Amino acid sequence: MQELEEPATAAFPPRSRDLSFLRAVIDRRLGLLVPPAASHPAVLHAAMRHILLSPGKRLRPLLTLAAAIQLNASEHAVLDFGCALEMIHASSLIVDDLPCMDDAAMRRAQPTTHVQYGEDVAVLASIGLLSRAFGVAAAAPGVSERARLEAVAILSMAVGSLGLCGGQYDDLRPSPGRSLSATEDVNRRKTGVLFSAAVEIAGHVAAADETQMGHLKALAGHVGRAYQILDDILDASASSASLGKDVGKDAHKATVIASLGAPRARKLLSEHLAGALATSQELGPNTEGQEPLRDFMTAAFGELMGPLAP
Amino acid sequence: MQELEEPATAAFPPRSRDLSFLRAVIDRRLGLLVPPAASHPAVLHAAMRHILLSPGKRLRPLLTLAAAIQLNASEHAVLDFGCALEMIHASSLIVDDLPCMDDAAMRRAQPTTHVQYGEDVAVLASIGLLSRAFGVAAAAPGVSERARLEAVAILSMAVGSLGLCGGQYDDLRPSPGRSLSATEDVNRRKTGVLFSAAVEIAGHVAAADETQMGHLKALAGHVGRAYQILDDILDASASSASLGKDVGKDAHKATVIASLGAPRARKLLSEHLAGALATSQELGPNTEGQEPLRDFMTAAFGELMGPLAP
Repeated sequence: MQELEEPATAAFPPRSRDLSFLRAVIDRRLGLLVPPAASHPAVLHAAMRHILLSPGKRLRPLLTLAAAIQLNASEHAVLDFGCALEMIHASSLIVDDLPCMDDAAMRRAQPTTHVQYGEDVAVLASIGLLSRAFGVAAAAPGVSERARLEAVAILSMAVGSLGLCGGQYDDLRPSPGRSLSATEDVNRRKTGVLFSAAVEIAGHVAAADETQMGHLKALAGHVGRAYQILDDILDASASSASLGKDVGKDAHKATVIASLGAPRARKLLSEHLAGALATSQELGPNTEGQEPLRDFMTAAFGELMGPLAP
Repeated sequence: MQELEEPATAAFPPRSRDLSFLRAVIDRRLGLLVPPAASHPAVLHAAMRHILLSPGKRLRPLLTLAAAIQLNASEHAVLDFGCALEMIHASSLIVDDLPCMDDAAMRRAQPTTHVQYGEDVAVLASIGLLSRAFGVAAAAPGVSERARLEAVAILSMAVGSLGLCGGQYDDLRPSPGRSLSATEDVNRRKTGVLFSAAVEIAGHVAAADETQMGHLKALAGHVGRAYQILDDILDASASSASLGKDVGKDAHKATVIASLGAPRARKLLSEHLAGALATSQELGPNTEGQEPLRDFMTAAFGELMGPLAP
């Protein structure tokens, strides 16, 4: 079969923090890690690239990079793991948008994959991206065999029936009168697991000790919960044009806003952001005195909250 | 997250060859490797087990075991890789049967997964099985880290857009007037890749040399082509009740029978079976003087060809 690997490029200036620069590095690598749109079967590859390479926030690879840099590991060593997480995320977006799920027409300011390419191609593109993610993680250059196997195991659990698939199931078939804690458990599996996977993989690559790993997981928990609340607030309040995707799709679902009301949900969002920043401080700066996780959170959530600005 | 691993059981009598005994060992292990049907989300786990544990031929794990035993490797060492292949196969059956693909109602003598559980659950069950397969391969007990990584890489390529997903795409959207060689290429990607993956993984675990690996790949090529032709012959000639699945689903598709006609397709089937047996002989018996690959092919194809008996 065709050989798709190429070594990670030496494209990073030392300890770069700029989100748009890092996104360009991630996007370039993503484009190399999936087959070109011209290669057979061209329509399938075009569908995979349609969702994967459309402008996105790239939060999961950015978090992976930030965690690695804060722990003095090389960003090169985790770039492909971050890309694998983005492939899994893109794969899950195709699935979430399917007619039998959320039946969404727009995503990332373009038609959803099944609208553009047909439902059969969308399902195959989703599986193609997911399978490729595991292959990318298994072949990550410059990383020990053990860390690559740990990454594959972490990704498998994150995607499977105890992670994303299970969270999506519960989101589609909510039990009536679900409690706030049950809603938060669904959110953890539907959204939190990939943020947790990002920092855990970075921690394994950086040979983090138990205390550091505990901080990383706590931080990912805060980031995941903050992001899910923010996503729900945006879904309820922002316009489809400003978000580039269908809005109001969660109106019938159990969300933190539905449980707490918008003002208390916003307060909880602030608390999780503060919690994430405090946990980053517990981890301490890297040997260059920098705190990439704090910088990532400040910049990424600053962007995300833009549509909410008065 | 819940820990699902347990060590492979010591359930093999030495060098057992009996297909129904080996199937029972495989089925028991499969049942342990996916979450129990009672664990949350129960419906999703029931759907995963519905297809995975329904009576099936288990050809891919059987081939994995036979190749390992012929090369004097332990069947214990490859059991979980065989199970991972069966999970991938089950996952692909759910997808192939979806309304947007073959829209099939019966599979393995029971309703297809989407008919029984709904389309959304079927898609999630398929992804859950696929993800679990990669986790199982990464954690296979008693196997070197390198062999596990090789297995993950082989499975990733086998499932992805250059393997199963691409073959399924071409099968759903055949180019008009497709040549026999193009049809065989589709069959290789749609069916052959998992047979090839089975013997390649067994070869890596057994530390096969280049010559042995060449024989293994040639053998898998013959087995995969023979199996696809036989499957098409059965689809065209046997009854739904005898096969336990919808028949006639390939009537509009490009098949070897459509290209060659039934008599020449049957001749080609015999040639591939003879080729597989000859290749097994090239590999030579194991240190106990046995040829498990020959035994597997004789027994498995004997069963498969039962419905064709006069």
